[in-house]
Amino acid sequence: MSNHAVETAERRVRMPISPERMHALFNPRSIALIGATERSGWSWATFANLTPDRFSGEVHLVNPKGGIVHGQQSLSSVEELPENVDLAYVMVGPAAVVDVMKQVAAKGIKSAVLLTSGFSEAGPEGAALELEVLDIALQHDITILGPNGNGFANFAGHVTPYGLSIPRVPLIGGIGVVLQSGGLASTVMDLALARNVGVSMLTAMGNELTTTLTDVVRYMVHDDATKVIAMFVESIRDPEAFRVVAREALEAGKPLVAMKVGRSAAGARVANAHTGALVGDDSVIDAVFSQLGVVRVDSLEDLVSAAEIFASGAQFKGNRFGVVSSSGGANEIIADCAEPVGLVFPDFNPETEQALREFLPAFANPRNPVDLTGFVVVQEDLPERAAEVVAQDPNIDGVIYWTDLPRERPADPATHEANVDYYRRQVQAFAKAETPVVPVGTAFTDITPYGAEVSVASGYPSGLGGIHHGIAALGKAVQWQLQREDRLKALQDDRAVQPLDIDAAPGSTFGEHRAAELLRSEGVPMVPATLAASPEEAAAAAESFGFPVVVKLAADEVEHKSDIGGVALHLNSGDEVRAAFSAVTAAGARAGVVDPKALVQPMRSGGVELIVGVVQDPDWGPVMAVGLGGIWVEVFKDSVLHPLPVSRERVREGLTELRAAALLDGVRGAEPADLDAITDAAMSAAAVAERLGNRLESLEINPLLVRGGSVEALDALITWR
Amino acid sequence: MSNHAVETAERRVRMPISPERMHALFNPRSIALIGATERSGWSWATFANLTPDRFSGEVHLVNPKGGIVHGQQSLSSVEELPENVDLAYVMVGPAAVVDVMKQVAAKGIKSAVLLTSGFSEAGPEGAALELEVLDIALQHDITILGPNGNGFANFAGHVTPYGLSIPRVPLIGGIGVVLQSGGLASTVMDLALARNVGVSMLTAMGNELTTTLTDVVRYMVHDDATKVIAMFVESIRDPEAFRVVAREALEAGKPLVAMKVGRSAAGARVANAHTGALVGDDSVIDAVFSQLGVVRVDSLEDLVSAAEIFASGAQFKGNRFGVVSSSGGANEIIADCAEPVGLVFPDFNPETEQALREFLPAFANPRNPVDLTGFVVVQEDLPERAAEVVAQDPNIDGVIYWTDLPRERPADPATHEANVDYYRRQVQAFAKAETPVVPVGTAFTDITPYGAEVSVASGYPSGLGGIHHGIAALGKAVQWQLQREDRLKALQDDRAVQPLDIDAAPGSTFGEHRAAELLRSEGVPMVPATLAASPEEAAAAAESFGFPVVVKLAADEVEHKSDIGGVALHLNSGDEVRAAFSAVTAAGARAGVVDPKALVQPMRSGGVELIVGVVQDPDWGPVMAVGLGGIWVEVFKDSVLHPLPVSRERVREGLTELRAAALLDGVRGAEPADLDAITDAAMSAAAVAERLGNRLESLEINPLLVRGGSVEALDALITWR
Repeated sequence: MSNHAVETAERRVRMPISPERMHALFNPRSIALIGATERSGWSWATFANLTPDRFSGEVHLVNPKGGIVHGQQSLSSVEELPENVDLAYVMVGPAAVVDVMKQVAAKGIKSAVLLTSGFSEAGPEGAALELEVLDIALQHDITILGPNGNGFANFAGHVTPYGLSIPRVPLIGGIGVVLQSGGLASTVMDLALARNVGVSMLTAMGNELTTTLTDVVRYMVHDDATKVIAMFVESIRDPEAFRVVAREALEAGKPLVAMKVGRSAAGARVANAHTGALVGDDSVIDAVFSQLGVVRVDSLEDLVSAAEIFASGAQFKGNRFGVVSSSGGANEIIADCAEPVGLVFPDFNPETEQALREFLPAFANPRNPVDLTGFVVVQEDLPERAAEVVAQDPNIDGVIYWTDLPRERPADPATHEANVDYYRRQVQAFAKAETPVVPVGTAFTDITPYGAEVSVASGYPSGLGGIHHGIAALGKAVQWQLQREDRLKALQDDRAVQPLDIDAAPGSTFGEHRAAELLRSEGVPMVPATLAASPEEAAAAAESFGFPVVVKLAADEVEHKSDIGGVALHLNSGDEVRAAFSAVTAAGARAGVVDPKALVQPMRSGGVELIVGVVQDPDWGPVMAVGLGGIWVEVFKDSVLHPLPVSRERVREGLTELRAAALLDGVRGAEPADLDAITDAAMSAAAVAERLGNRLESLEINPLLVRGGSVEALDALITWR
Repeated sequence: MSNHAVETAERRVRMPISPERMHALFNPRSIALIGATERSGWSWATFANLTPDRFSGEVHLVNPKGGIVHGQQSLSSVEELPENVDLAYVMVGPAAVVDVMKQVAAKGIKSAVLLTSGFSEAGPEGAALELEVLDIALQHDITILGPNGNGFANFAGHVTPYGLSIPRVPLIGGIGVVLQSGGLASTVMDLALARNVGVSMLTAMGNELTTTLTDVVRYMVHDDATKVIAMFVESIRDPEAFRVVAREALEAGKPLVAMKVGRSAAGARVANAHTGALVGDDSVIDAVFSQLGVVRVDSLEDLVSAAEIFASGAQFKGNRFGVVSSSGGANEIIADCAEPVGLVFPDFNPETEQALREFLPAFANPRNPVDLTGFVVVQEDLPERAAEVVAQDPNIDGVIYWTDLPRERPADPATHEANVDYYRRQVQAFAKAETPVVPVGTAFTDITPYGAEVSVASGYPSGLGGIHHGIAALGKAVQWQLQREDRLKALQDDRAVQPLDIDAAPGSTFGEHRAAELLRSEGVPMVPATLAASPEEAAAAAESFGFPVVVKLAADEVEHKSDIGGVALHLNSGDEVRAAFSAVTAAGARAGVVDPKALVQPMRSGGVELIVGVVQDPDWGPVMAVGLGGIWVEVFKDSVLHPLPVSRERVREGLTELRAAALLDGVRGAEPADLDAITDAAMSAAAVAERLGNRLESLEINPLLVRGGSVEALDALITWR
């Protein structure tokens, strides 16, 4: 997306479009193709996508020259259109769009697809033109899809005003597709055909002038034909609206699966707090999606595979699977793929193994994962019998069933009949199963036309596309189903946030002393500290804490006090403290601090250093990072991000997801950390950030020192907007 | 693989099979199918795979009952076979195999495929039977492929004695396939057909009674028809022979691509040294493959994709690519996929951009990656012209060219002709290009029959299967080509290793004192230490080092001395040292140490703690781990493994591959570590391990303390076999 588009977008009115208007956009009964001409491939394709076998409504063509276009009489102006046109599909050149849209408005047409390119994506002039179009749309309440988008294909609704050729229509099914890339739409349709999976509708967003991806997702969440929503996302332009829709999707039980590009381009935040190293554009998206229950995938193959398993409707009560296959090699790949996505293969109970032994050959493996061996060539009914037995085992929540549909039509019709019969018997076995049976093929190859024919004739599902993508998709589906309630509950947060009014100059910094005061007063466990204005005050404070102590320059204007000699550690006597006071305040004076003072604190050592920081994401608002602190922040970037607000449960769970989680368990005999106390500290910091609202630029506690049950913030920094 | 197979394998004679004998096995002119019967699917399939259209030699059938089998007169015994049979393909039941093999031997047949199952994979009885067959093979010098394997398909040699149906023969091409899983062979052939790529031959290994995967790979390395070898690997049974073959493959410029399963099952080594946490079965395989230049992949899709790019013969001088596509979305996916595999997209030089601007529409992007936009629908020649211009840019080493072959046959024959013409023009543009142009499709879908037809008619290659798998494969290919010389050079190590004879009881341990003595004498920089037998000796040693010092119990029988109170740190005076001596030796006495002594060392603090450890892998011999040490070993398992011997260059390079590499650069103003000094220390430790040979169980330096230019081992442990 160019900067121009961003500039334009900021001036847009981002109001969710009503369900009625979205329904009207996607379900027109009559369509006008404006700018229809035989010289344009788009015109040919769109017209071909609206022939009577694909669309039962009226199609009108508008061409300034009139005459026969695509074999049909055209009208020479929008004005000549009848009154009942529901959708204007506009293909004229960019220079003509404003006039055409005025005519569309005058005609009272309330929905438009703008295929035309040359708007905000093309530069400042295009962006200005786009704003003119927007003004017309707002003034006349026209819902626009595009510009610079190919339109949509509502397969379930049998209306496909879409600008590129659709040589073969996919099966109609539960997958709704929405893409912020027109170039990939054909590929997604090809994938649906290749994998023999059903699509409800597909939308290519274009520049999102009035209709955003979020609007389309909202429509699909409430569209009965759609069971799962597959998205290709470049950027989400209305984060707050998206949050609401994502929650509606969770409530409706319709998973959002997103392929979000931009991992490579996304940078880390530049911030003077170290938290900036942890919170990058892409990691925030990961965190937001996780919080909202949006399933993120990294390839188109995974997008289609995840959509496929969700659309199947299979419901899993847990992550324990039985595996039935006839290849030890396949089972090893399945095991390798299952582990990283959290699927486990528990032992069967003895009855299951016994039941399997009764009909399996002696050299087959009746344990989980079951290897029926190549003997299935001899005894064809082994797989279906094994699936039935395994599916009733109380230790499992589902069956991974390794089978491919045949690819080549056999020469002998009897063999074809046998094939259909074979798969029909599998379907019968699956129907008797007490847990879902998930057919998984070996590799991500097409279901061939012959395979699709057998699938239709037998009722056997196509199966997930290959072990690699299929098991990954299954893992995502199980995780989504198991986390759904928790995610929803965490999003029910409707605590009223009490604003906290702090006197701080915009752009200023609170150094350790003032930041600690604020945080301490809000319940963050800060290490005790006394502000001393003289060597004697410092020594007295040290005596009251007990030795050793630390003396630090206290000055908001010095962000990295150790760099200028403003920190003295390991002080063991009053004399050392007095000398240290003089040294750090002198360092402060050299750095330009007027009347420098010093903080005296007890010296801590040992333990695990964590960091708790909050920064503002321009799209998603405050994001808290909880991770490994100290010098390790930049080295390992080991943190878990929480867009705020966040639930206490989630923050605690996040601690166990750190790569360094073992440190908190207590390495080599160290006392285990009190995760509840850490969570309390982080929640207190999060509450401060939320109460400070937009005033806050960043808030950072580093280190938060954890020694078993003791949790203490040793340093803090707050910057203001 | 069951334990029985392992037991059997250990008794096997593992001698590489001569090239002549392997050639004879894979190129028989006449074949006897022994146990041919119409009651067996295997018999039907094998016979069908040897019909005259697939094999021009003689096929004889042996069935004890004689008569007509598969429409051909059979012989009732092996004895009746003519004299010229080159290969016995044995399908009889397991009980009959020994007799049949005796007859095969008597007949003078020198090669056999044993399809029959029920041997070592099935249990102890089968394993015993397998040994009987082995005895016959060794006695009569018969090369056996199998048992429990489907045989092979030498497509380039037009001889496919293979036990499962091959409904459609793949294209003949440069990919040699060898699989330790019969069940996956059909999938790999399907994938080759789906992706329209050519296979030279395919072998299903079975139990590897005399012919191992390594033997087959060696054959393929020297087989002119094979350009790249794609392997599915469960375990490599002859590691030393494999090392030799892998080096031959590097020399021949034939990449080995391996999908090695078992990541999930592979455990970490159990060892009393902490190195055990770093060196697991699977990480050793990764390290060995990396050292040998074997390309490891994690899916069948990646296996085929990597084989495809290697087989294309494209040669890259570097990792800098230009991208030509007509979709911004595709470009973003390409960028996301390229980054993790090390491909970069540099800026074009100004002449290239200017040349592109001359014919691209104003709203297209002439910078790298190029987005031609959907305008390619209007102006069809944009892609080929852009590819030609981009390919001559001096800043790039290759072009990623985003295009899919058409999938559906157009209704209009003229459109078909236009399609072929379009792709033919691309081919012409590629031929003029000064760097390789790599066509990459969007998703991993089949090349449809129509797409394959266009490919053949136009000469346009099928292109890599989708961005996700294709760019990953391209990254592997570029890396392999760029590293090949270095890998080969590193394998040229032929230093004579001087054995080091140390007096140590088998199974014993050298604690810090003796281990340090040994390592110090071999050039490892150990922290100074004095062994003290009395409090006074300890205090004197401390005075000579200067304070602070450390006092540690010195006792080989105590492996974790700090756990029993055997370590005293931060000692600042003679009195403290004397007291510490008494305390740690008393702790030793309580732990049963007779006449305990103590080590006195200067106390070090700060710096980065590394670990250098060597453990013995049962398959691959000594493996050195160099990584983050101290308590971080188990927490982050951040290490690089080096099978020994290893080159100095590689060890130094490995330091920069640590996740914690930034620590060595010097975090927050710390002095950068001297990587050469660290490398020297690790190389000295490696030399000790090599010189100790099989006597060594493990050797560990932890921590190796690095403070800028100072590198010192603070503790060490050696265990003996």
